[in-house]
Amino acid sequence: MSLWQSISDQLRGEIARGKWPPGTRLPPEAELAARFGVNRHTVRHATRVLADEGLLYSRRGAGVFVAATPVDYPLSERVRFHRNIELSGKVPGRTIDAIMTRPAGDAEAEALGLEPGQPVHVAEGVSLVDFKPVALFRSIYPAALVPDLPAALRQHDSVTQALRACGVADYQRLVTRISARTADAVQAGKLQLEPGDPLLRTEGLSQWQGQMVERALTWWAAERVTLTLPHQLS
Amino acid sequence: MSLWQSISDQLRGEIARGKWPPGTRLPPEAELAARFGVNRHTVRHATRVLADEGLLYSRRGAGVFVAATPVDYPLSERVRFHRNIELSGKVPGRTIDAIMTRPAGDAEAEALGLEPGQPVHVAEGVSLVDFKPVALFRSIYPAALVPDLPAALRQHDSVTQALRACGVADYQRLVTRISARTADAVQAGKLQLEPGDPLLRTEGLSQWQGQMVERALTWWAAERVTLTLPHQLS
Repeated sequence: MSLWQSISDQLRGEIARGKWPPGTRLPPEAELAARFGVNRHTVRHATRVLADEGLLYSRRGAGVFVAATPVDYPLSERVRFHRNIELSGKVPGRTIDAIMTRPAGDAEAEALGLEPGQPVHVAEGVSLVDFKPVALFRSIYPAALVPDLPAALRQHDSVTQALRACGVADYQRLVTRISARTADAVQAGKLQLEPGDPLLRTEGLSQWQGQMVERALTWWAAERVTLTLPHQLS
Repeated sequence: MSLWQSISDQLRGEIARGKWPPGTRLPPEAELAARFGVNRHTVRHATRVLADEGLLYSRRGAGVFVAATPVDYPLSERVRFHRNIELSGKVPGRTIDAIMTRPAGDAEAEALGLEPGQPVHVAEGVSLVDFKPVALFRSIYPAALVPDLPAALRQHDSVTQALRACGVADYQRLVTRISARTADAVQAGKLQLEPGDPLLRTEGLSQWQGQMVERALTWWAAERVTLTLPHQLS
């Protein structure tokens, strides 16, 4: 086994045993090089491998940090934030920053199969896991299909429950599109991150009885959530 | 329709018509505010909405840029880079930076169901679409299962073909885990990005006849590729 591999295995073990808790900054390269009796190039190789695995991440100019173990979030045709989080043994939560009704913009109308200018309900807020923010959301609904959704969203803990109260009992995700962005100052503030930290961005389109019922944009704090995709074997 | 919405629709139209090609920096807020006869807050609201949709992105300290239209890359149980890209009407390609055989590290061994230290083949390189880099990959294979893979990888254009040459004809993706990172200087250099630009990171585990055959780590340039997930409706 090569030198860098034995160093990366050793650091991995120390992280697993809690010597370096999530959020901790790793000692500088020079210090680690002295500790292991190797040069900085070898240390860098070892920490790069751990970064590749997701155990470490670097913040520009600030050093190398230990990543938190992210929550696994399964993407399926029945995406239900509350149930998904509960199944992982954690406490789901949500704060709503704004609920409004306004004319659909061009992109929104196209996604939902509406004419531009037709009314949509928009809900914006923060999704929580164990009382910590994990994602920002902006979800958009055709107002004509679910006229009473704003009131229902204020009454119910989850979107699923609110939609059910409006008669939409069994909606299904048609497609999810996944990208990455870096957090701007506003997003970082709401998610308790630093500006420039990576976000997973998902756009989900759902339908109910052949009609588009939801366009959900979500920005996930990448250090706190991993999206998982269990494939169906044929 | 509100003022910011009419501005964002107008800018969206200009981007669609090619007035602002991908990679262009949008004029500063003050200039756009003067053009539309509104205050900077309204301009910022309009450009934030376009950023949320993925049409614009900001680079810290450098301004707001027009995003390229990313290639859609479908994630399925049969993930085949070459075929996926060909189906989108583009030219797939690949450069291999390194092929090596070495003992598996702890994380690699766990993912592939090996003992730490058992030999693995490792292939590292860059995936191309229309001759432009879109992703970095590091793919790992149990050497005992496909002893001749290194030679096959050098001979064939795609991993699928190389594995088939080694007798592995029909492997299947078991799970894909999706996260986001920011590019470090090395990754940015290879992908022709700026350090700090967002990357999608995927880890895919594949099996063949009940044995783990591949652990594929991929770092996608988020501005060039969107991962898509067409759900199966039940």
